[in-house]
Amino acid sequence: MMMKRKGILIVVSGFSGAGKGTLMKQLVHSYDNYALSVSMTTRGPRPGEEEGREYFFVSREKFEETIAADGLIEYACYCENYYGTPRGYVEKQLEKGRDVILEIEIQGALKVKEKFPTALLLFVMPPNAAELRRRLMGRGTESMEVIEKRLKRASEEAEGIEEYDYIIINDRLEECVPQMHALIQAAHDTPSRNLEFIENMRRELEAYK
Amino acid sequence: MMMKRKGILIVVSGFSGAGKGTLMKQLVHSYDNYALSVSMTTRGPRPGEEEGREYFFVSREKFEETIAADGLIEYACYCENYYGTPRGYVEKQLEKGRDVILEIEIQGALKVKEKFPTALLLFVMPPNAAELRRRLMGRGTESMEVIEKRLKRASEEAEGIEEYDYIIINDRLEECVPQMHALIQAAHDTPSRNLEFIENMRRELEAYK
Repeated sequence: MMMKRKGILIVVSGFSGAGKGTLMKQLVHSYDNYALSVSMTTRGPRPGEEEGREYFFVSREKFEETIAADGLIEYACYCENYYGTPRGYVEKQLEKGRDVILEIEIQGALKVKEKFPTALLLFVMPPNAAELRRRLMGRGTESMEVIEKRLKRASEEAEGIEEYDYIIINDRLEECVPQMHALIQAAHDTPSRNLEFIENMRRELEAYK
Repeated sequence: MMMKRKGILIVVSGFSGAGKGTLMKQLVHSYDNYALSVSMTTRGPRPGEEEGREYFFVSREKFEETIAADGLIEYACYCENYYGTPRGYVEKQLEKGRDVILEIEIQGALKVKEKFPTALLLFVMPPNAAELRRRLMGRGTESMEVIEKRLKRASEEAEGIEEYDYIIINDRLEECVPQMHALIQAAHDTPSRNLEFIENMRRELEAYK
């Protein structure tokens, strides 16, 4: 009855330590129809990282060629390394009707929203700041200095939350995964994502006049 | 963990014959936490209608007093009769945390959105115009002239669909009821409806700086 629906580009941001990564992995694992976008970077792979899984690892020359060919939806430079989202994979998956998930921080998220006005922006947060601190410390791998830096960064990122469509409070993962899925499903029902259906309805009604 | 959440004011519009009434009744019947707003009118009750169930039936004087006392969220005049939404009931239910559902047409919906910026606007549609015509004719109670008028009215209303937050395509009721519920639940997770939570988080993060 409905027209074949197009995929939605979903941008996930949130504080370091909020649990975005696990949430996204669980979502893709629990439901069909999602595709995870893999970023391209010029930094070298870390132990355990695999080409095409964590990142596509490329040379600086290759990255700049891709920029020049308009092959990236967004990109940024951190610590002298480029990071970006390859356009081809994302567009192919959307065309197939799959919802594509992309993890980036707020500046990148806003750039994506400009190019894809129907992108859905999700912001993942812990239930409170004390819990965020606990989680960052619980990792046991980071120095106090790094933790302080992350908390400071969280405070900066918190300024942009109103730019997002929905917030997800990651308290209990088993509740958050279906919640995230439900928010994405809801997004499929906005008028702006059903323009073709609405136009058809208008044409048909017009004919009855 | 979360703060006690406030109710959302939900405005339901849609073509005559789209099945709004049944959908709303089923929603309230199937889930807790909803309250149906009952309109006030100056028209007389029709056979089978009960005071306080279909409408609050009042005199013209009483209605105009209520307008003067700012006792209505919105009102309009059709066929020389007033129709309006009493403010008291709606605000009390929202305060209690219940989601309040209100059925009105587009002009009223936009007035509500002005006064309650976090109101959620839902537009109910049939799967296609032929189905709408079939449903209107299937009632067997209306003259061809009335049906034509309703279809013409639907065509006018279709112009405003983009003003709504979500569309609900009422094909199969048993799917639409949980869909409508999910859309309302999703609306609870927007930043604009969680300003207090976000502000708290910012304050807490600020303290770590």
